[in-house]
Amino acid sequence: MTEARIPGVSALVFDVFGTVVDWRSSIIRELEAFGRERRLAADWTALADAWRAGYQPAMERVRKGEIGWTVLDDLHRETLEALLPKFGIGGLSKAEILHLVHAWHRLDPWPDAVQGLTRLKRRYIIGTLSNGNVALLLDMAKRAGLPWDMIFSAELARHYKPAPQAYRSVPNFLRLDPGKVMLVAAHNNDLVAAAREGLETGFVARPTEYGPHQTRDLKAEHDFDVVARDFLHLAELMGA
Amino acid sequence: MTEARIPGVSALVFDVFGTVVDWRSSIIRELEAFGRERRLAADWTALADAWRAGYQPAMERVRKGEIGWTVLDDLHRETLEALLPKFGIGGLSKAEILHLVHAWHRLDPWPDAVQGLTRLKRRYIIGTLSNGNVALLLDMAKRAGLPWDMIFSAELARHYKPAPQAYRSVPNFLRLDPGKVMLVAAHNNDLVAAAREGLETGFVARPTEYGPHQTRDLKAEHDFDVVARDFLHLAELMGA
Repeated sequence: MTEARIPGVSALVFDVFGTVVDWRSSIIRELEAFGRERRLAADWTALADAWRAGYQPAMERVRKGEIGWTVLDDLHRETLEALLPKFGIGGLSKAEILHLVHAWHRLDPWPDAVQGLTRLKRRYIIGTLSNGNVALLLDMAKRAGLPWDMIFSAELARHYKPAPQAYRSVPNFLRLDPGKVMLVAAHNNDLVAAAREGLETGFVARPTEYGPHQTRDLKAEHDFDVVARDFLHLAELMGA
Repeated sequence: MTEARIPGVSALVFDVFGTVVDWRSSIIRELEAFGRERRLAADWTALADAWRAGYQPAMERVRKGEIGWTVLDDLHRETLEALLPKFGIGGLSKAEILHLVHAWHRLDPWPDAVQGLTRLKRRYIIGTLSNGNVALLLDMAKRAGLPWDMIFSAELARHYKPAPQAYRSVPNFLRLDPGKVMLVAAHNNDLVAAAREGLETGFVARPTEYGPHQTRDLKAEHDFDVVARDFLHLAELMGA
């Protein structure tokens, strides 16, 4: 961990779910609004958490080759469709399911995100590096005002993080040495996997990503290149 | 041709070389500046035109499978290295060659481009769809202030336009019907190929792209969906 600006880094790419946007509050808000409109009662918070709990297992099926390449929108739909009956919700139309799946396109950024990214953009190439698909990340950026220079996605590499190919794809597209690219994430395991491919690493804690009782990723557990409190602090540390 | 806003289009993607940026004036300017610094005399205008004349033949080697997938930066370098001796230029270092190849990252936009795109971005997803590689298009956008939401490139599809895969890649990434995506270009053949894949088409004439004696692409030669004088006119026609 250093408090000095990293010399030689010319691009910052960001994990998105949890790092840039507060997926949990946003999905709960979306489900509750849907419930009110449709006059449905359910434990929407539990559904949001169960939906997210299905995220890694769904990607694992792709990683292991059990199913072919499948974008996150489709994995989100499959996970939701399996959960709805367990939460006592039935009879939704295709359009309603799609509306809920697209809730992941309408996530709100953490309060510091847009301002921090706008500062960082003046000095660095800034992009996503997310398991979200391009359409999801693009819709999210336009709605939330996230000023990305480029949307890098597992979809472009056709490998979900933490597969090495996902991390390598960014310096490959940018034609930069991996050490000129920094991954910024709120998750220790994401950064460890990025460092293994030679990327620089920046940790930003998001201690309420999983709600008030979060136990994981409360702090940097490895010797990352930069550790910041939020994106404004990150901009400051990076000289932007 | 219609003067009415196209209903249902939600994304506009732009050919870049010639349509968004004035490659010829920019490359001549870059070569002349290099010549002054290095105290080299040559017909820089002729070199710029010869370099561009090698563009389609270089991509054709990839399209025909004579060589594997090769990004445009590398094709530009190979073409330049073959031309330099013919123009009496020798002894350049690797760094100097790279500086010249990267002149294609430093192209200036046509005077209406940034303002037109900024207007269009309020209402539509706007992106590139160029044979330029991602790094080239990204560097260009940052230098020129081109406000892309997304950089789509032949590099993502690993097929150079006018291969069908290049056009199809955009609705595929955006998860939109092809008819919801419009290609904007100053070249009739690019738009004809896009229309064949179901994209909407917008023609913007750039009558001095190839210099004062340009003979091709002076006007729309087919029944494109929109024909505009420049990007401001395009924004007006598209209701943005």
